[in-house]
Amino acid sequence: MKALAIDLGGTHARCAMVEDQAILRAKTLEADGTGTLAGLLPRVADAFRELLREAGWQPNDFAGLAFSSCGLVDSSAGRFLSAKEKWTDAEQADVPAWCRREFSLPMKLENDARMALLGEWYAGSGRGFDSIVMMTLGTGIGGAAMIEGKLLRGKHFQAGNLGGHQTVQLGGRKCMCGNIGCAEAEAAGWSLPLVAREWPGFAESALAREPRVDFEALFRLAQAGDSVAGEIRDRCLHVWAAAAVGLVHAFDPEVVIVGGGIMKSSGAILPFLRDYVRSHTWTPWGRVEVRAAALGNDAALLGAIPLLSA
Amino acid sequence: MKALAIDLGGTHARCAMVEDQAILRAKTLEADGTGTLAGLLPRVADAFRELLREAGWQPNDFAGLAFSSCGLVDSSAGRFLSAKEKWTDAEQADVPAWCRREFSLPMKLENDARMALLGEWYAGSGRGFDSIVMMTLGTGIGGAAMIEGKLLRGKHFQAGNLGGHQTVQLGGRKCMCGNIGCAEAEAAGWSLPLVAREWPGFAESALAREPRVDFEALFRLAQAGDSVAGEIRDRCLHVWAAAAVGLVHAFDPEVVIVGGGIMKSSGAILPFLRDYVRSHTWTPWGRVEVRAAALGNDAALLGAIPLLSA
Repeated sequence: MKALAIDLGGTHARCAMVEDQAILRAKTLEADGTGTLAGLLPRVADAFRELLREAGWQPNDFAGLAFSSCGLVDSSAGRFLSAKEKWTDAEQADVPAWCRREFSLPMKLENDARMALLGEWYAGSGRGFDSIVMMTLGTGIGGAAMIEGKLLRGKHFQAGNLGGHQTVQLGGRKCMCGNIGCAEAEAAGWSLPLVAREWPGFAESALAREPRVDFEALFRLAQAGDSVAGEIRDRCLHVWAAAAVGLVHAFDPEVVIVGGGIMKSSGAILPFLRDYVRSHTWTPWGRVEVRAAALGNDAALLGAIPLLSA
Repeated sequence: MKALAIDLGGTHARCAMVEDQAILRAKTLEADGTGTLAGLLPRVADAFRELLREAGWQPNDFAGLAFSSCGLVDSSAGRFLSAKEKWTDAEQADVPAWCRREFSLPMKLENDARMALLGEWYAGSGRGFDSIVMMTLGTGIGGAAMIEGKLLRGKHFQAGNLGGHQTVQLGGRKCMCGNIGCAEAEAAGWSLPLVAREWPGFAESALAREPRVDFEALFRLAQAGDSVAGEIRDRCLHVWAAAAVGLVHAFDPEVVIVGGGIMKSSGAILPFLRDYVRSHTWTPWGRVEVRAAALGNDAALLGAIPLLSA
């Protein structure tokens, strides 16, 4: 089975032709979020037409178009629910109509965290499981859940997506979601510099001399023996582990898949998460697996086939 | 529609005849958990036969038997998964076979927290909603979730049941589930005396002179102006509110129903929870309701009709 797939993020749109568990061909567009979808979609259509021409295929060689997007989406109606900051006309956009007009193809729209989970389930670390929680550690902490082969969406399409927005620290840091002490407010890309700056001894640490306080620097300096970096890294690991325990207790999965840019340091993260989750969850049925995501940025595109087949 | 219903708890078994949204007749048996189900079930059957005789009905006047039980249950197979501490033979018990033999009736077995949610949905505070989280504040913190009219069960029948076992306090108190800093370990009936005993000033507070440090005493003394009781009560409210925020973010409900013995003090609890949940959750679709449970101990029995109809 072949599908067209697009992964629309805050800064880029990646357009691809996908066959089963492989990406055949892809093109990436700048999509820096300053504009409108009405401006972007014609460029997306052009990119797909180029891909088709290069491959010598027609739209009707494809089962449909899978549209992965950041933000909340109404996957039943194919509408964007919360991308207004990125695309001023997002909530008006009728992507299914656009897709019929341009390619005469059916399409489905889904949130990118759920698409990444679908991809990992179909072609990555989730193969062989049907109950999966995915946790993506990056600028924020994203997530999605699948229960017995079905994506969890919820009444307002938020279920499973806010895994980074459980309280892990009463009276902790203010989060962008309105809550206090969320995992994301305590240990994610955007909050790390704020956490670090208030850490005792930060000003004297090697971390303070870095051009950017990010996870790459944190893990590198912690590894090199900087004690403040080591303390902050350990705190982050605890926050992620506590959040993972909460996800296991909420959604009852067989496996927790951990993805995101931070997993470049997965050697320092995964063993800790695995031990902590196994020793801190109540799972009388057996042991929950904790695995690194296998597909990186390809995951959301590789969710195309299961999305369109569902 | 009429059903037989039983609510089996740790100390009592309540047997009832239910018609639609009403309990017609009920009998309560002692079931103190020291014995076996093989010893208890014949007494349950006798209680139902007495109820039938008193009412002048036959088993086949009823659509089936709904069996609500504490602990984890496999609701597909009708087996107990985790009640070994209470009934040594629980995992061997074949309740569907017992029910066919005694009454020639179909039966369904479900966890009591899910049954209480079903009851509140069908006949109580959840009427008119289809996406509900229930949180029961008592000796422990129980919970259940319904998404778009379907109970959430999960791969191992745990999903939604462990709402009290999200981490709300990194490095907090050890919980019975194996985790650290669970809402239940920070603010539930079993943990309250442990929390209180370590509270600064406890020894001099009116709370220390109570025969039992329980929520009744805590709310009474806080109301009367005891400052330590007031501080601990406020901490408990924050813990419950943080847990409720986590449940909203996990399961995306329209309404959070709060039940349990503590809700006798609901005047002190509900306004706080409602304000906190509304101001600390990200719900771009609108405002989540926070309501007190309406049915008390009847909820699980009144879940009988929707359970058997599903």
